[in-house]
Amino acid sequence: MCDICVMNAVKDRMLSRRSFFKGSAAAAAAAGAATLGGTTKAMAEGHSSVVDMTHTLSSTFPTYFGEPGISSEQPFNFAEHGFNLFNLSVNEHTGTHIDAPLHFSADGTSVDEIPVGDLVAPLCVVDIAARAAEDADAQVTPDDLQAWIDAHGEIPDGACVAMHSGWAAKASSDAYRGFDGELQHYPGFHIEATEMLLETGARSIASDTLSLDHGISADFATHYAWLPTGRFGIENLAGLDQVPASGATIIIGAPKHEGGTGGPARIFAMV
Amino acid sequence: MCDICVMNAVKDRMLSRRSFFKGSAAAAAAAGAATLGGTTKAMAEGHSSVVDMTHTLSSTFPTYFGEPGISSEQPFNFAEHGFNLFNLSVNEHTGTHIDAPLHFSADGTSVDEIPVGDLVAPLCVVDIAARAAEDADAQVTPDDLQAWIDAHGEIPDGACVAMHSGWAAKASSDAYRGFDGELQHYPGFHIEATEMLLETGARSIASDTLSLDHGISADFATHYAWLPTGRFGIENLAGLDQVPASGATIIIGAPKHEGGTGGPARIFAMV
Repeated sequence: MCDICVMNAVKDRMLSRRSFFKGSAAAAAAAGAATLGGTTKAMAEGHSSVVDMTHTLSSTFPTYFGEPGISSEQPFNFAEHGFNLFNLSVNEHTGTHIDAPLHFSADGTSVDEIPVGDLVAPLCVVDIAARAAEDADAQVTPDDLQAWIDAHGEIPDGACVAMHSGWAAKASSDAYRGFDGELQHYPGFHIEATEMLLETGARSIASDTLSLDHGISADFATHYAWLPTGRFGIENLAGLDQVPASGATIIIGAPKHEGGTGGPARIFAMV
Repeated sequence: MCDICVMNAVKDRMLSRRSFFKGSAAAAAAAGAATLGGTTKAMAEGHSSVVDMTHTLSSTFPTYFGEPGISSEQPFNFAEHGFNLFNLSVNEHTGTHIDAPLHFSADGTSVDEIPVGDLVAPLCVVDIAARAAEDADAQVTPDDLQAWIDAHGEIPDGACVAMHSGWAAKASSDAYRGFDGELQHYPGFHIEATEMLLETGARSIASDTLSLDHGISADFATHYAWLPTGRFGIENLAGLDQVPASGATIIIGAPKHEGGTGGPARIFAMV
C-alpha cells in the first residue's frame, strides 16, 4: 500500500472512531491516580544493572516512510572554531521514539505533557519472538497477554507492556522494514490485545518494530485505540532480549519539546 | 564579547592546552572501571519518587548564541492526514542538554558513545544559590566542593556533580542569559574546582545555567579541562531545588544520534 493510501485509510478510520475516543479519554483521566503507585513500587524494588534499550540513531536507521529520519549539518568544527556542533533535522517519529497521544488525536497530550510518573514504569515483556520468526505479520494477541498474566500476575498499574518480537536484531537489514514493494511486514499489537490492555492500568505499550500496529495494517487500529485515550507508545525499542519478562523498571527519557507529537527518546531498563 | 571573539579566544585556548588533554584522557580511561560501581550503588539504594530535571524546550528557551535553538514544520496534520507529525530543526546545544567530549575535542567520545553506566549516577548538588543571588558571575570553587565533602563524604565514583545556582527559576526571563550588550552573566564552574573534580571518580558535571563555564568566561577553561578527558557535561539542568545535596540518583537520558557532540536530553532524579 502506498503512503498516500495509508494516509487515506487512516483518515477514514479516524472519522469512524472519533466518538469512541471521547469516552476513552475520560476513562484515562480517571485512571491517572494509579500511575504513581506503579512507579513508586517499581523504584522501591532496587536493581543492580542498567540495560540500554535505545538503538543508535543515524540516517540509515529504517523508517516507516523509507526516507532518512535524521540529517545534520556542521556550522562549527574543532579545527576552525575550537569546538564541534551540529544542527540536526529530525522527523519526530524516528529511531527509538515516543508516540505521544497528540500523534493520533486532534488535541491530545503532547510529548512534553506526558506525566513524569508514567515515564518510570514496571516493564512487562510479552515474548512472541518464536511465532514472529515464522510469520513477519504476527501480532500480540489477548492469548499472549493472558499467558503473561498467568505466569507473572496482573499487569501492574502504570506498566509499560512491550512486545518482544526479535525484530531489534534486524535493524541493520532490509528485513526490519520488510517492504515487499507494496506492504511492510513486521509484528505489532492486535487491536483485541490493545483493547484488553485498555482495561488495565498500563500507561504505555512498546514495540521493537517500526510501529505499534503490524506492518500490513491498513487502518492503524492500535494507534487509534490507544493513543487518543491519553496513553502513549514506544516504537523501535531495543534490548528486550536482555531483560526479564517481569520485574524490570523501564525509564523512558521522552523528549520534552513543547507541543511535540513524540520524538527520539533515550530508554533504559533497570534490572 | 562578540560571538566571533569568543570563538577566537576558544581557539587560542585550545592550542595552548592540547598537550595537557592527552594526559588527562589517559587518566580518564584508567578511571573507567570505577563507573559501574557508582551506578550499581546508586540503584541499589532504592528511591520513592522521581523528579523531572528537564526544562521544556521551545523556540523561546534562552540559548548561548541568543538565537532560537529549535524550530519545527508540520508536514502532516490530524485534520487533513489523520495524524500529527513535526519535522524538527535543533541546535544540539539547546535546552537541557549534554555536552559530549566531542563537543570540545577533535576526536573525543560522541554522545552515542557515552558509557551507559555513566548515565545513571549518584547526584552531588553543590549549592551556591545564596552567593549567585548577589553575584551573577559567581563560580563553584574548590572551597564549595570541600564544604560538600565535609558534609557528605567523598565524591562517589561515577558521580554527577551539579551546580545549583538558582538560575533555573530565571529561564523565562532575560536574566537567565544576563546579556549586557557585550558579555553574558551567569554562574559556572571555576577552573580550579574543575581540576579538583578531575582527581575524583566523577564522570559528569552539570550546571543550571547556559554553560559549564560562567557567562563572562573568555576562554571556556572548564569546557577545555573537563570534556577532552572523556567526561561529559550537562547544561540548563532544572529541578535542583527539589533534590537533596546527596543521596539522589540522576538518570541522564542522553540522545543517541551517531557521532553527535551532544543534544537535548531528558533527565530525571530518583529521590
